[in-house]
Amino acid sequence: MIKRIAILGSTGSIGTQALDVIKQHPDAFEVAVLTAQSNADLLVEQAIQFHPSQVVIGDEAKYTFVKNALSGTAIEVLAGADALLEVVCYDHVDVVLTALVGYAGLLPTVKAIKAGKPIALANKETLVVAGALIMPLAREMGVPILPVDSEHSAIFQCLMGESHNPIEKVILTASGGPFRGKKREDLAQVTRAQALKHPNWTMGAKITIDSASLMNKGLEVIEAAWLFDVQASQIDVVVHPQSIVHSLVQFEDGSIKAQLGLPDMKLPIQFALGYPNRMQANFPRFDFKDYASLTFEQPDLETFRNLGLAFQALEKGGNMPCILNAANEVAVDAFLKDEIGFLQMSDLLANCMAQGTFLTSPSLEDYVNTDKTTRIMAQEWVSKLKK
Amino acid sequence: MIKRIAILGSTGSIGTQALDVIKQHPDAFEVAVLTAQSNADLLVEQAIQFHPSQVVIGDEAKYTFVKNALSGTAIEVLAGADALLEVVCYDHVDVVLTALVGYAGLLPTVKAIKAGKPIALANKETLVVAGALIMPLAREMGVPILPVDSEHSAIFQCLMGESHNPIEKVILTASGGPFRGKKREDLAQVTRAQALKHPNWTMGAKITIDSASLMNKGLEVIEAAWLFDVQASQIDVVVHPQSIVHSLVQFEDGSIKAQLGLPDMKLPIQFALGYPNRMQANFPRFDFKDYASLTFEQPDLETFRNLGLAFQALEKGGNMPCILNAANEVAVDAFLKDEIGFLQMSDLLANCMAQGTFLTSPSLEDYVNTDKTTRIMAQEWVSKLKK
Repeated sequence: MIKRIAILGSTGSIGTQALDVIKQHPDAFEVAVLTAQSNADLLVEQAIQFHPSQVVIGDEAKYTFVKNALSGTAIEVLAGADALLEVVCYDHVDVVLTALVGYAGLLPTVKAIKAGKPIALANKETLVVAGALIMPLAREMGVPILPVDSEHSAIFQCLMGESHNPIEKVILTASGGPFRGKKREDLAQVTRAQALKHPNWTMGAKITIDSASLMNKGLEVIEAAWLFDVQASQIDVVVHPQSIVHSLVQFEDGSIKAQLGLPDMKLPIQFALGYPNRMQANFPRFDFKDYASLTFEQPDLETFRNLGLAFQALEKGGNMPCILNAANEVAVDAFLKDEIGFLQMSDLLANCMAQGTFLTSPSLEDYVNTDKTTRIMAQEWVSKLKK
Repeated sequence: MIKRIAILGSTGSIGTQALDVIKQHPDAFEVAVLTAQSNADLLVEQAIQFHPSQVVIGDEAKYTFVKNALSGTAIEVLAGADALLEVVCYDHVDVVLTALVGYAGLLPTVKAIKAGKPIALANKETLVVAGALIMPLAREMGVPILPVDSEHSAIFQCLMGESHNPIEKVILTASGGPFRGKKREDLAQVTRAQALKHPNWTMGAKITIDSASLMNKGLEVIEAAWLFDVQASQIDVVVHPQSIVHSLVQFEDGSIKAQLGLPDMKLPIQFALGYPNRMQANFPRFDFKDYASLTFEQPDLETFRNLGLAFQALEKGGNMPCILNAANEVAVDAFLKDEIGFLQMSDLLANCMAQGTFLTSPSLEDYVNTDKTTRIMAQEWVSKLKK
């Protein structure tokens, strides 16, 4: 049976790679819905190639452009954030791939789960912010959450056939990013361009900056805690510069399972869309002939403070990861605009975590409010700094 | 429910470690039967500690000693090779652990499968010799073959929950043994004592010599072909001196799964006995802090000819692996008696493979005959050399 996929965020890095995967497997996948925030040109191009039933352009100012460009096709054109909440519920959608950036993924994901749609989750912020709501909801609805992040896909793959065996520990690998081995004093003056040069992975700007600061690994720690129902104390991070071992699970007998491969997001994307079936693919194969050595180091938590802050937020619980995430989205945005320096991103996060209003058991509304008020607080901090 | 275990070969390295595992889990395991070829003292000691229903001493000359030593207990004492064929069929046996050395494991394993007993297979020679009979028989009887070899256990663990996904390749890791990096000229004069010093694993003498010559890896290649239904061309061997990654599987999407841990046979033994449940164990845990680097090299097939011979035997099929195995058992025995040199073991194997009578589709009887005639041929070759 052909799976019909809704891709939220089809013009981003994950979205375009998902379309590559879908193109390779016309017998398995069809595009049901494509959505983009602002890249109307690419959205139109993708729509013409993959003829979904609907497209959504987030930026309502671009509605007319998209509408005109797709006139004469059978494709329905929608616009605005609310349209996302509708399209994920359509009957002709079998799987929702959430490849939006940041907090924006939260509400559509909740809607999709409530509509009983399996989620291929590429938007880690959704779980970071509101894992305490999302995971019980998914269980209640019997909806699988299939991780697309390479690390979580690795752990998920290692857990196949092991659901009856408790996890002792998960070990997330981190490439270490472009600044691996650098000290705090080296990072004070690094530029946007330096931070955007990831050694192994080609990704969007936000996640690339998060990788440079190890914030990405911190968000992944929180994501892993929710996905695999483990405590902060059961999660280790190890720096593995070659990005071949994508992550590992240790069971209660001490046995460790790992998933390996060349760094290529198409593999975890295909795995999530095709689950539980692996499909033949011509992705380049990993070969030990090309890797005489795989190396592993401990992360430098003094230099890369964000990783420690993420562990703190996870241990604190409640809305603290939501505060961390909102502050980080503002921080990365400000860094990308050259408004603050690299190290100031951590300062901003620590500041918001110290000053935000802590809630032990937030509702969905509380998360929405926490996100809003934290962004305002963070933005004020950035504005003061700019002066 | 408590599993009652028959251990064939309880006084050997695997047997004694299996008893350690059983001792740790009195709520899960009980000893039903213990057997030993000649170590009567240890067999008696084990029997008194674990009170099985039966013990079998292979060497009939030691029957009276064992019988007297266990008089006054409820333990029945049997002797001789035929007794092995009986005890594996008893109703009070739930799992048969075949930890005998070499070809001797074949007939008891066949009997146990025919009696519907799950096999924890530590005797790789059984599959090397007669995989073409064993595997279809096990499938027919619905009997699981649970590998105890660390490499095959690793692959088996990686295949959990993946039975619907075809294997593209299995990658067996090899420590490289004590002579890794040596060339042919270095090996001409190596001694028994040098060959018996394995860098990572503590094992019996036969398998330790096989590890030094890479014959063990060759036998494992053939074992893997039968266990996992793959062709010679789908099996790679990579030398990994740290023995942490125990082996890997590559699927058709290019994804690779691996199983890792400190080298400790108790883990795969416990896994096979407890399958599908992993049990808590206090085996020392692997930690990346102790392993900054895991290294991988290609095997040197020119120096370690036995590995290439094993691939040839697998590709040829029929009774060729049986010829290889019988010749090797004689060769290792002769080397351990200082009758032939290290490199002459390969010469003997190649000789027997060239001169043995090839059968395309042997019966069980044919295997028994091939084993017998090959041993005679090999022994004659050794005798000539001794003169």
